[in-house]
Amino acid sequence: MKRLNIGILGFGTVATGVVDLIKENHAEITRRTGYEFAIEKIFVRSMDRDNPYGLSLTTDVNDVLMNPNIDVVVELMGGIEPSLSYIQTALDHNKHVITANKALIATHGNELFKKAAEKGLMLMFEASVAGGIPVIKTLRESLIGNKIESLAGIINGTGNYILTEMKEKGRSFEDALKDAQALGYAEADPTFDVEGIDAAHKLTILASIAFGIPLQFDKVFIEGISSLETEDIQYANQLGYTIKHLGIAKYLPEGIEIRVHPTLIPKSELISNVNGVMNAVLVKANGVGPVLSYGAGAGGKPTASSVLSDLADISRMLDADKAQYVPYLAFQNQALSNAPILPQAEIHTAYYLRIKAVDQPGVLSDITHILAQHDISIELMIQTKSVDDNLANIIMTTHETKEHSILESLRAIEALANIRGKAKLLRIESFRS
Amino acid sequence: MKRLNIGILGFGTVATGVVDLIKENHAEITRRTGYEFAIEKIFVRSMDRDNPYGLSLTTDVNDVLMNPNIDVVVELMGGIEPSLSYIQTALDHNKHVITANKALIATHGNELFKKAAEKGLMLMFEASVAGGIPVIKTLRESLIGNKIESLAGIINGTGNYILTEMKEKGRSFEDALKDAQALGYAEADPTFDVEGIDAAHKLTILASIAFGIPLQFDKVFIEGISSLETEDIQYANQLGYTIKHLGIAKYLPEGIEIRVHPTLIPKSELISNVNGVMNAVLVKANGVGPVLSYGAGAGGKPTASSVLSDLADISRMLDADKAQYVPYLAFQNQALSNAPILPQAEIHTAYYLRIKAVDQPGVLSDITHILAQHDISIELMIQTKSVDDNLANIIMTTHETKEHSILESLRAIEALANIRGKAKLLRIESFRS
Repeated sequence: MKRLNIGILGFGTVATGVVDLIKENHAEITRRTGYEFAIEKIFVRSMDRDNPYGLSLTTDVNDVLMNPNIDVVVELMGGIEPSLSYIQTALDHNKHVITANKALIATHGNELFKKAAEKGLMLMFEASVAGGIPVIKTLRESLIGNKIESLAGIINGTGNYILTEMKEKGRSFEDALKDAQALGYAEADPTFDVEGIDAAHKLTILASIAFGIPLQFDKVFIEGISSLETEDIQYANQLGYTIKHLGIAKYLPEGIEIRVHPTLIPKSELISNVNGVMNAVLVKANGVGPVLSYGAGAGGKPTASSVLSDLADISRMLDADKAQYVPYLAFQNQALSNAPILPQAEIHTAYYLRIKAVDQPGVLSDITHILAQHDISIELMIQTKSVDDNLANIIMTTHETKEHSILESLRAIEALANIRGKAKLLRIESFRS
Repeated sequence: MKRLNIGILGFGTVATGVVDLIKENHAEITRRTGYEFAIEKIFVRSMDRDNPYGLSLTTDVNDVLMNPNIDVVVELMGGIEPSLSYIQTALDHNKHVITANKALIATHGNELFKKAAEKGLMLMFEASVAGGIPVIKTLRESLIGNKIESLAGIINGTGNYILTEMKEKGRSFEDALKDAQALGYAEADPTFDVEGIDAAHKLTILASIAFGIPLQFDKVFIEGISSLETEDIQYANQLGYTIKHLGIAKYLPEGIEIRVHPTLIPKSELISNVNGVMNAVLVKANGVGPVLSYGAGAGGKPTASSVLSDLADISRMLDADKAQYVPYLAFQNQALSNAPILPQAEIHTAYYLRIKAVDQPGVLSDITHILAQHDISIELMIQTKSVDDNLANIIMTTHETKEHSILESLRAIEALANIRGKAKLLRIESFRS
């Protein structure tokens, strides 16, 4: 029996999932790959821990990174350092690398892929985006004959759980977040999840492999869900929309849009029906049309399923020439493009606006006049009386326009005498072809 | 530039899609794979046809099958013969083969894979199931670390279009079918689509690669949609279900269920919201949990997208050792299992029943008594008056039971004095974990 010798960095939730799957599905894995997946060594912080399978643990990371018996190092610690240094050392010692670390790939992937290429090694990261959903393989391998036009993903389970609770039970953001923390879906410090940073890391990776551009995390527009109000979720619902926190990337002749923000989606579209902690990624491409992949975006075993997929790919290519590898970012390393990322002011979409006004004749006329001056056409409007403050709540949806037009209009509208407070702005997308 | 030299058999819808995608996306394909996909020769029935790119056509099939310049033969003619003989000849002449032909793989795949293995050649078939959805790659490569527990697919777009029309517009089967034919979704002879044979071909393939068993088309239970009545679609809707024509495969300790039939699915489940000609495949596995893939299940370019995925995989492995190939049926050829396929009478699921009865005291008591004798417990019941014939329409759903228990009960119920006609039987599935 051929062996694939595996070293693992970290022994948390995902690493436990990897170990459990390798043990539980040992027969299937060997029947499929022809290899025994052998866990040679696991780097842990402390030897004083559960080790139900009696695996070989070490607190000296070099027992993994420099171990001559190890073919593949699997980094499952998360964070930037020391993961970055460890992966570099593993590459220096001619180990193939698998990582589930989206923050690391999004911010240091370019340099890591360069080093891996120089050494002729594989560096795989299926588990870094959308947990168990095979979206990296789909983009890198299945859609190779397509021009990718756009993608949109629910790629943070915590955020989707909170939005689902807010919509279905009318709960506030704070209340739903507390629940998510109690259930273990959200961290004690939920910033990465609810402010969209985690989703932006994942979107950075998806946009690169979709369009063949270097990883550019610093150019992603990021808006979280922490300032979403239950009220807007309910108005959106009345208008036929569900609000989801989406990562969106679009390829346009003038440049690429990459943005993470709460988004109104027509309720009839499949992706608006993805609820709870589940993830989904919708890709639109010029050959296949729309393709949606749905599944668990986090959790030990689902994420481990993706790690094992990478392990199998590496096992098949252990003796291969590096020209046979699937390119890291889907495109040959020298074929990445320098297509510009558009600033957010230049993006083009439809909008949802909520404006508070003193209920007097002429207010609506003033608002619509300003929108007309900016060439913005209104699709729908509803006006309700606010119970709290006896003001009028004016809710509008617009047709597609440039973001800077909307922002300029809103500044002008907010300056009107009868307008109170800041206008609420949300973006609308439809993924129907 | 490295070249992958391609010969194509047939020049219909899918072949046209392949040619168009290779031409339109030439730059992306080369940027991704490092190869030029070069169409060397296309076998056509008649030279008198459109050839917008001025490709080299031939009416002599051996110009493709025996062409020393060709690396890969792509069979896009469909049907059993002469496709089978042509593929055998191509393998004899050391060509890798790609086919979109589900009927051929489902019924002759075992012998073709054996021959390809002996010759050390790849035989790829991503396009044979669910058009552009990468479900074969997902099962063969992404889920390798999982035990697959079950799968359920909407894998015939024609059937799904008809059921969607029947549900949303209250149309009859015959009426919706005519429309599907007018729109080009259904053939003049729609038997393969509406009687479930096409879906059974695809399910045969999916079940093999999911569970590691040989292809066994003759053991699939097949029930089409042609006898579905609008009435049952409406009752199902009232009870909270949508009826979809599903291919279902389940791995159980006592054996494998493989069956195609109309199925009631709770409306809240994502797969029940897949409408029109779109396809979707839901896989449940012990690592990742549920994974659903959704997209176009037919059409020239979507299907071509899958052919190009296979072409790229072959380009990467042109110089590889055959031990590096992904196994044809996901499991190493010598590791297929002989797990038994269960006869339909042994399957285990919940049921929907509709029984017509003379509306007299005691009828319901007789029916429920028979069901109780067979240990079948009722979940829900509604009774309505039929407008046509003044009979009572008794609609029930049951909890899970063996199919033979239900069939025996129905025979006994139909023999009761006050029952009219045959009972209507449909199966219910829920894919919630």
